[in-house]
Amino acid sequence: MPHIPLPNHLPGITGLLEYRLDTARPIRELTQLLLRGDSTLTQGERELIAALVSSRNHTTFCTAAHSKAADLLLGDDKTAAAVKADPETAPVSDKMKALLQIAALTQQSGRAVTAEAVDRARTAGATDLEIHDTVLIAALFCLYNKYVDGLATATPSDPAYYDTLGDRIVNRGYNRPPGGYPAPQSVTNNS
Amino acid sequence: MPHIPLPNHLPGITGLLEYRLDTARPIRELTQLLLRGDSTLTQGERELIAALVSSRNHTTFCTAAHSKAADLLLGDDKTAAAVKADPETAPVSDKMKALLQIAALTQQSGRAVTAEAVDRARTAGATDLEIHDTVLIAALFCLYNKYVDGLATATPSDPAYYDTLGDRIVNRGYNRPPGGYPAPQSVTNNS
Repeated sequence: MPHIPLPNHLPGITGLLEYRLDTARPIRELTQLLLRGDSTLTQGERELIAALVSSRNHTTFCTAAHSKAADLLLGDDKTAAAVKADPETAPVSDKMKALLQIAALTQQSGRAVTAEAVDRARTAGATDLEIHDTVLIAALFCLYNKYVDGLATATPSDPAYYDTLGDRIVNRGYNRPPGGYPAPQSVTNNS
Repeated sequence: MPHIPLPNHLPGITGLLEYRLDTARPIRELTQLLLRGDSTLTQGERELIAALVSSRNHTTFCTAAHSKAADLLLGDDKTAAAVKADPETAPVSDKMKALLQIAALTQQSGRAVTAEAVDRARTAGATDLEIHDTVLIAALFCLYNKYVDGLATATPSDPAYYDTLGDRIVNRGYNRPPGGYPAPQSVTNNS
């Protein structure tokens, strides 16, 4: 059960973003800029960073949502799973392997990101902005994961929930829909 | 040396917030809302949460800046130091001790925040919104700490730098000053 009263039909981050709308607005805006804004990283690559960090934080809701978004954007259901298992053997570019390593180190601690890890990314073709954005996306998903788990929000157990949510964040992005975040039609809360 | 080129005269978070202005804007806005907006927690209490989380993440720049801000807002230079050493024996209210425990647990992992820790805060008089805001402030400072350390930004060693910065965030808040974040007059970068 969530630590504070949240609507049953809005599990995970969705209820929190409706709980305090003024703080939700910049959180949504930052996410939209980083994950959907102009970038030399594809949207699918950026969702892989979100999925990997959420997985390393063991935040089931965010991991499932962003894995599904990555699957839809990449057009397969293997890559996100492989990245979560081990970025080094996943079917992604050398540049993405190096950026995913930076994201994983950021998840551990900012101080864990070494000059060697950054040099590896740069040698593989990463730009300064890509390195910057990787660290900031990883840091943002640590915020999300701590927010979602720290308030013990509900985690639906039905995979269909994440199919719907993944489709929504791929096709509508992270801004608040007019009138709020609609509840999915069928949700099994497992909290 | 920072992992990406940042201006020498803008250490810590200050250079990052000028590096990518579009993402800086919602980060600043979220911080201003949470730390300076209307709240039943005082600004000093909220800065204590920021200082404690930054200290637990070992992010020297953020710890020094928010400890100084707390000192100025609380009118003493003992409370922030005592909170960082041990919130349970610090000269703060029972409610703040319980909220600082929640913040410290959030820093470890969102999943570390127990129903018992939340019940303790509620018994000591904390509202749902105060519990929510404590978790979100703690999560936000984990973002900041990972951003600042993950890109290896410079950490001034001169305490006078943090006197200036603390005074600025107390008296001007977290929004971007017109024309940008002015460089302090004397900075010793220790990076």
